[in-house]
Amino acid sequence: MPKTIAIVGKYFAAGISESLTEIADFLQGRGHHVVLETETAQNVALPIAAMTPEQIGRQADAAIIVGGDGTMLGIARQLAPYDVPLIGINQGRLGFITDISLERMLPVLGEMLDGKVDSERRSLLQGSVVRDGQEIFSALAFNDVVVARGAGSGMAELMVEVDGRFMYNQRSDGLIVATPTGSTAYALSAGGPLLHPSLGGMVLVPIAPHALSNRPIVIPDSSEIVIEIVNGRDLSVNFDMQTLASLQHGDRILIRRSEHTITFLHPAGWSYYDTLRQKLHWNEYPSRDGQLK
Amino acid sequence: MPKTIAIVGKYFAAGISESLTEIADFLQGRGHHVVLETETAQNVALPIAAMTPEQIGRQADAAIIVGGDGTMLGIARQLAPYDVPLIGINQGRLGFITDISLERMLPVLGEMLDGKVDSERRSLLQGSVVRDGQEIFSALAFNDVVVARGAGSGMAELMVEVDGRFMYNQRSDGLIVATPTGSTAYALSAGGPLLHPSLGGMVLVPIAPHALSNRPIVIPDSSEIVIEIVNGRDLSVNFDMQTLASLQHGDRILIRRSEHTITFLHPAGWSYYDTLRQKLHWNEYPSRDGQLK
Amino acid sequence: MPKTIAIVGKYFAAGISESLTEIADFLQGRGHHVVLETETAQNVALPIAAMTPEQIGRQADAAIIVGGDGTMLGIARQLAPYDVPLIGINQGRLGFITDISLERMLPVLGEMLDGKVDSERRSLLQGSVVRDGQEIFSALAFNDVVVARGAGSGMAELMVEVDGRFMYNQRSDGLIVATPTGSTAYALSAGGPLLHPSLGGMVLVPIAPHALSNRPIVIPDSSEIVIEIVNGRDLSVNFDMQTLASLQHGDRILIRRSEHTITFLHPAGWSYYDTLRQKLHWNEYPSRDGQLK
Amino acid sequence: MPKTIAIVGKYFAAGISESLTEIADFLQGRGHHVVLETETAQNVALPIAAMTPEQIGRQADAAIIVGGDGTMLGIARQLAPYDVPLIGINQGRLGFITDISLERMLPVLGEMLDGKVDSERRSLLQGSVVRDGQEIFSALAFNDVVVARGAGSGMAELMVEVDGRFMYNQRSDGLIVATPTGSTAYALSAGGPLLHPSLGGMVLVPIAPHALSNRPIVIPDSSEIVIEIVNGRDLSVNFDMQTLASLQHGDRILIRRSEHTITFLHPAGWSYYDTLRQKLHWNEYPSRDGQLK
Repeated sequence: MPKTIAIVGKYFAAGISESLTEIADFLQGRGHHVVLETETAQNVALPIAAMTPEQIGRQADAAIIVGGDGTMLGIARQLAPYDVPLIGINQGRLGFITDISLERMLPVLGEMLDGKVDSERRSLLQGSVVRDGQEIFSALAFNDVVVARGAGSGMAELMVEVDGRFMYNQRSDGLIVATPTGSTAYALSAGGPLLHPSLGGMVLVPIAPHALSNRPIVIPDSSEIVIEIVNGRDLSVNFDMQTLASLQHGDRILIRRSEHTITFLHPAGWSYYDTLRQKLHWNEYPSRDGQLK
Repeated sequence: MPKTIAIVGKYFAAGISESLTEIADFLQGRGHHVVLETETAQNVALPIAAMTPEQIGRQADAAIIVGGDGTMLGIARQLAPYDVPLIGINQGRLGFITDISLERMLPVLGEMLDGKVDSERRSLLQGSVVRDGQEIFSALAFNDVVVARGAGSGMAELMVEVDGRFMYNQRSDGLIVATPTGSTAYALSAGGPLLHPSLGGMVLVPIAPHALSNRPIVIPDSSEIVIEIVNGRDLSVNFDMQTLASLQHGDRILIRRSEHTITFLHPAGWSYYDTLRQKLHWNEYPSRDGQLK
Repeated sequence: MPKTIAIVGKYFAAGISESLTEIADFLQGRGHHVVLETETAQNVALPIAAMTPEQIGRQADAAIIVGGDGTMLGIARQLAPYDVPLIGINQGRLGFITDISLERMLPVLGEMLDGKVDSERRSLLQGSVVRDGQEIFSALAFNDVVVARGAGSGMAELMVEVDGRFMYNQRSDGLIVATPTGSTAYALSAGGPLLHPSLGGMVLVPIAPHALSNRPIVIPDSSEIVIEIVNGRDLSVNFDMQTLASLQHGDRILIRRSEHTITFLHPAGWSYYDTLRQKLHWNEYPSRDGQLK
Repeated sequence: MPKTIAIVGKYFAAGISESLTEIADFLQGRGHHVVLETETAQNVALPIAAMTPEQIGRQADAAIIVGGDGTMLGIARQLAPYDVPLIGINQGRLGFITDISLERMLPVLGEMLDGKVDSERRSLLQGSVVRDGQEIFSALAFNDVVVARGAGSGMAELMVEVDGRFMYNQRSDGLIVATPTGSTAYALSAGGPLLHPSLGGMVLVPIAPHALSNRPIVIPDSSEIVIEIVNGRDLSVNFDMQTLASLQHGDRILIRRSEHTITFLHPAGWSYYDTLRQKLHWNEYPSRDGQLK
């Protein structure tokens, strides 16, 4: 059973204070040592010790995140080096990775802390930008690394190498390299496939590619990808939400799987397919029955 | 104001009798002359004259269809030569063309019969199959004409001509030629675009085409299409739900816009975009907000 | 037979001078009055009168454009108000609308000027941007009007109205409104269908839309479209290649068919499907025969 | 260096005899023991011992296949239990896995037999059909297992389970389960992504799915898939080209990775991306440059 549990809240959401207090009381009542993430602590008036993400990483046995998938991804990137298991509670509509509802959180947390828990590991991408032989930027990405042209400029031309082998020169609005976690985010909008989180793969999804045969390609996540800027104006690269703008011709973006992983904890019996069905409306989708039968 | 109004019901649906009786009473109370479609009459015990679709076509001023889009399309094909305006009431979830709910039908019908009505015309396809110079099959289609291979056989190879000009030899599972009405049915599943009903066009949508550049193509509905069977086994052609199986190499399917059209009546203020939004869940679709913001 | 013929060249292309001289000699030899477009005249030393596009529009009976599709579209927009018929000669690989090769140009031109010619009309879009009730920008577009977010910013949220009716609030990288001419350009890369040039339609193609059901939709080209900026940063709008950046929330982009059209002249027997087949490699596309047979 | 080398030819192709003789002479001249596959031997008059695929599997150190990808896949399935390394020589246009041209085969074979060779392993699928608790059919598939409806019948409804967990009830024309090898075949036509052969994954690609959010999904190839027939007429299942027709409601198709793998030998320096570029025309694809620049 986790001893020290950190609580992280989405900072300015209404009603968050009550929820966090409820969770803290519940955990303390069960005998856990509870701490608040520093910024969270500034927004709720609770007589509980605050810790920076780094301290949480070093000292906590688990962290409970209250917010949406974005909140979860943000803190997960910070905690990545420490591999603290994370539990996600969603304030609104359930997310892909924050899959416990506010309404049912206390009994569900209770069962999970009693050991009725499924855990899964998610991979991250480690990316860097090299200009004239120097690394000028470096970041982790949970969802995706995106190289894209600016609006109002012509197509980008990107040279892609994988494991030292030339893949292609592609002309498009840009290229998304997504983890399984990111395969349900921007990559999906751009036409990419879904990747099961336990697949050891990542997917390259071109955005509005000039060549119709430039289809998404899934490669092993042991691969190393280089994207070189060949042509285009106003190009930038995003690592999740962290942007480096003003890429120059010849800049090389290097992408590989991070050595870190994130552990998510789910209620026992959790199934990724249940989440997909719910989020993608697989069972509720409008039917054209009338017409087709 | 329409004098003679025919009522058509989906024949074996539970509770249909009550709904039809309610509508008949309502219409008679307003002074309309009400008739029942023959098969409908056999399933509801009402002291009301029955008419065949042909008689309805010749004598009725409007027809009210209770059922789903499929019921509507079936009777619409039969009434196509007569252009009786149609009103669709949906027993279950609203359809693309049966857009009045059972719950609200009486007040809505009342307003429509008082003239608060929008009408729109839909086009149909007229198709025929020519073998050795002889027409061996002919039918109307409201949604689409589909030439497709059988399961378990190899790809079909189809030669397509439009207005006497060679378009291509395509290899695929088959080819859909859809009206705007059909663009929200099978054609949509196969990757086709939506066509506004007032567009004078039809769309050719290849099913799982071998060549990635064989994209859907929208052509004027004044065009004449010929699909010739070049290769493939177990091919068949469907005109909506009417099937001719066992096509042979050299068979030519001729498709053009029918001289007939169908008029649908909608409550005043009706908008096709409202229907699209509702049926395609444009406003309710699951969000990736959490992740992206 | 056209009396006055203008020649327009792609300005800085190598070898252009020889080609233009050859054409001019050929036309003069046939008794036509030949003029050069002003900028073209500055790059070739020919003793031939120069005219601005406006003068060409008023005085020429036809114009011959030597270049690619881009050159053609540029001059076509300028000549749109005058409806001078245009002939396109391609210096490199044939284009969608510049479909006469340099090698065969003289005999082909000869036949065309003798009347062996097919003509077709293409529509343009007229767009404007309204801010606080004032029109702040206005332009014609031959291919498309594109509203798009900047790289590095979150999704754009656009409210779309057609003919005064609300279509949807869409969240995406942007929205393309394309003519049939533009349907083979950017709209195709973003997943749009091909539109035959004689279709009286235009297509809305969302770019990487958040909702998977936000499919391309083809509407009559008599429709008026309003795109209102609801949310997003660094948005811009492009009319072909003419950009207005820094759109603000509440800006409304109005798009409708221009009153002008362009007439293209093709060698007699020309077929749009021949062009599609060639440009999209429909007949040459790599086969998976080996695997599938 | 392989001692015993088997030669397999595409049986009825013209000119095959000369090619096979040339290869046999070349190999014998290098001191290899050469044998012919039985059916191949019947079509070429060579004084060389014949062996059944089973004997080849047990006794040969390598096999050279002359034909297309289909020939290769057919023999590969037969040799799968024995893991004889395979070399593919293509008589016509190069294939995805038969990547040595007839013209250059002798020098290339020479170098490969000298050890300048790259080898890669491809996985296969093992599938079976269970009806009323009894296995009624079983087969290997190199490309894909496809469950599909017949032409002329309504949509199929398939219940899919992965690793004992319910994925979804999908309504469509059918479902493709493809290996990385099969990801460039039928699955690609149906909208699937490319999978690198070294990815430990397989992809489920729905064919013309009713729900627009039923996107391709890539799962680890350690997964076990069950597809149960819920509804539909004339359904059949194909394991590559081996068909079981007349599936019944309740039939369950079980699919998992075969315990066997196939080893392909390529000339040293071979890159899968080179093959993709060539087969998908990534570098040669028609450009819309003219329009876009």
